[in-house]
Amino acid sequence: MGKEKVYEEALKLHEDNKGKLSIQSKVSVTNKEELSLAYSPGVAEPCRKIQENKEDVYKYTSKGNMVAVITDGSAVLGLGNIGPEASLPVMEGKSILLKEFANVDSFPLCLDTQDTEEIINTCKLLAPSLGGINLEDIKAPKCVEIERRLKEELDIPVFHDDQHGTAIVTTAALINACRLTGKKIEDLVVVVSGTGAAGSSIIKMLNDLGVKDIIPTNSKGIVHESKREKYNFLTHELLEIVNKGDKLGEDTLEYALEGADVFVGVSIAGLVTKEMVMKMNDNPFIFAMANPIPEIMPEDAIEAGATIIGTGRSDYPNQINNVLAFPGIFRGALDCHAKAINEEMKLAAAKAIAYLLEDDELESDYIIPSPFDNRVAKAVSEAVVKAAINTGVARIK
Amino acid sequence: MGKEKVYEEALKLHEDNKGKLSIQSKVSVTNKEELSLAYSPGVAEPCRKIQENKEDVYKYTSKGNMVAVITDGSAVLGLGNIGPEASLPVMEGKSILLKEFANVDSFPLCLDTQDTEEIINTCKLLAPSLGGINLEDIKAPKCVEIERRLKEELDIPVFHDDQHGTAIVTTAALINACRLTGKKIEDLVVVVSGTGAAGSSIIKMLNDLGVKDIIPTNSKGIVHESKREKYNFLTHELLEIVNKGDKLGEDTLEYALEGADVFVGVSIAGLVTKEMVMKMNDNPFIFAMANPIPEIMPEDAIEAGATIIGTGRSDYPNQINNVLAFPGIFRGALDCHAKAINEEMKLAAAKAIAYLLEDDELESDYIIPSPFDNRVAKAVSEAVVKAAINTGVARIK
Repeated sequence: MGKEKVYEEALKLHEDNKGKLSIQSKVSVTNKEELSLAYSPGVAEPCRKIQENKEDVYKYTSKGNMVAVITDGSAVLGLGNIGPEASLPVMEGKSILLKEFANVDSFPLCLDTQDTEEIINTCKLLAPSLGGINLEDIKAPKCVEIERRLKEELDIPVFHDDQHGTAIVTTAALINACRLTGKKIEDLVVVVSGTGAAGSSIIKMLNDLGVKDIIPTNSKGIVHESKREKYNFLTHELLEIVNKGDKLGEDTLEYALEGADVFVGVSIAGLVTKEMVMKMNDNPFIFAMANPIPEIMPEDAIEAGATIIGTGRSDYPNQINNVLAFPGIFRGALDCHAKAINEEMKLAAAKAIAYLLEDDELESDYIIPSPFDNRVAKAVSEAVVKAAINTGVARIK
Repeated sequence: MGKEKVYEEALKLHEDNKGKLSIQSKVSVTNKEELSLAYSPGVAEPCRKIQENKEDVYKYTSKGNMVAVITDGSAVLGLGNIGPEASLPVMEGKSILLKEFANVDSFPLCLDTQDTEEIINTCKLLAPSLGGINLEDIKAPKCVEIERRLKEELDIPVFHDDQHGTAIVTTAALINACRLTGKKIEDLVVVVSGTGAAGSSIIKMLNDLGVKDIIPTNSKGIVHESKREKYNFLTHELLEIVNKGDKLGEDTLEYALEGADVFVGVSIAGLVTKEMVMKMNDNPFIFAMANPIPEIMPEDAIEAGATIIGTGRSDYPNQINNVLAFPGIFRGALDCHAKAINEEMKLAAAKAIAYLLEDDELESDYIIPSPFDNRVAKAVSEAVVKAAINTGVARIK
């Protein structure tokens, strides 16, 4: 389908269905008896039980499977700050993906505020009836602060997919690119273009994975200690773990790529040229995830010598698609009543996605399972539960 | 079923189903094409349309059919201030009733605050993705202030069922009691026991209906101008319209009932004796709605000469059940994108419930349709739409 056709059909789909989400009753209320059990007077009994023991809310209500997709509409897709109403179609989409891919119940809440403290406070006030919170499409670096504060202050899982979803799937892709080619994670030089929400999370996760040399670049050039005063708190944190070779030189992406093994782009269409790829080490991996147009088109990357290429697009192989990660992550976190989604759980998710593919299944065009491979969410959720138990954040086992 | 049995079965129902509510996708996302329409990249198109014209959020999203059931858990059923978690089973019940009786999608939000301003602010912040707000089980008189402020400050329907639900159905019952017996609304002397959220709303609605002599009583005796300084703002408002005969005398409920035609109780079990009913005018109507034990049991009221009796219970005839009102009210308000639910819409709902029964269908044991009469929600919603259009709060016709 052409782009215009997709937009036209998508609009029709949304209009015909008046949105994508509805509510369903799990119990029948078609006569007096049923009504007296589901509602008054019978409903008083589960209320009393929960009053006696707050944890019973997981036993008698839908809380344990209910996630709110919360946004302020400040950074929606590539559309920018379009506000809460206009962001609702995306949030509904997220909700139905959670449902369809991992049977997580979820509804969107688009907030009429873009104030950090007000967003945090609202999420906290909403927590009693929620099993988890998926933050979505909130501008960086505010989104990071909001997620961190909520992780500290709430005892339900809070996850900002824009930060971690891409990081998890990129990490899975890198693991499998190494498995396929025999390169070693710890030997790689990885250039990451973009240090916003997604870029920062990618850098941290690759560092956790064992990548030793990560060189980030952004609109201010190569990330380097000497430019500390130009950075926000997010980039300050990166300074501790990146650019250990103290690379600055000409201070360009081109210079950063010289001698690198991997390019990871969460930045701007067309930023990387064939010439730049040719300056990288032999057989580089290129994960060019700018949307909808990548930093370099796969055809060009191949011509320039890249062996493995991933993008955010569904019309090329190796789509780095968040839907591989977030449904299973919430499934796992909810299944074990996790108090949070921590770094170990996210890394476990990345490894589960990667190792779902056997050694002999891996090909340069198939280092990432299809989002429609129905083994994915199950594998991810199981790995997440295990990691939650191991790190002490699971409340049930 | 005995009471203990109901509680036992209700608990089992809630545990077996892990709550009563789930989410459903209205569209299919089982392959790449479908994903590209429901989510990225296609979803960008409805976003852009809504960005251009905010009202299009009703066209392309579920907002127009989505109601949040919001509580702070401060006055739940007869259980009191049990907090947000313990109130969730009731809120889920409300949500599924909205769905099952009127196809309104709805989810519960139990807030972790009992502060009036914080509740108001949270509701306002949540409004962009909501078609309406059903306030539930919030303590009086705070609940009245919250509802009023939200009605002023939001342009979506906000409805506090504890106030108006009982009022609407009681009004319907009174209309039909008059139709059946030939008594005239304007000649009735009505005693209302209880001037909290429900009592106040009943009094105002009966006044709107045309009842000329309403005598309220509460824990401070007969409501009377001379006790003004003992009352909150809610009772102050009543002073303008009640007790026009300036009745005070012995200042007891018993004294109030002398010469009254109707007793309406939203107060305390067993408050009314046979002797008190015998002091009322001949053939009185008794609506004794204290839950679960009425102000006077129907058997006793009949013995004392009452001709028409209604209670809140499903095991006696003429159950004054809110479920006759709120689903159809929201259905109507959503159908016409009403900016609010005003007094005229509520009174129209009461009349629609009453006149659903033909003259020759009315009997002393059947002045109110069954909650499972599936004509009710339709009749109510149509009447509500008409009243909304007539009073200029409907955005579509």
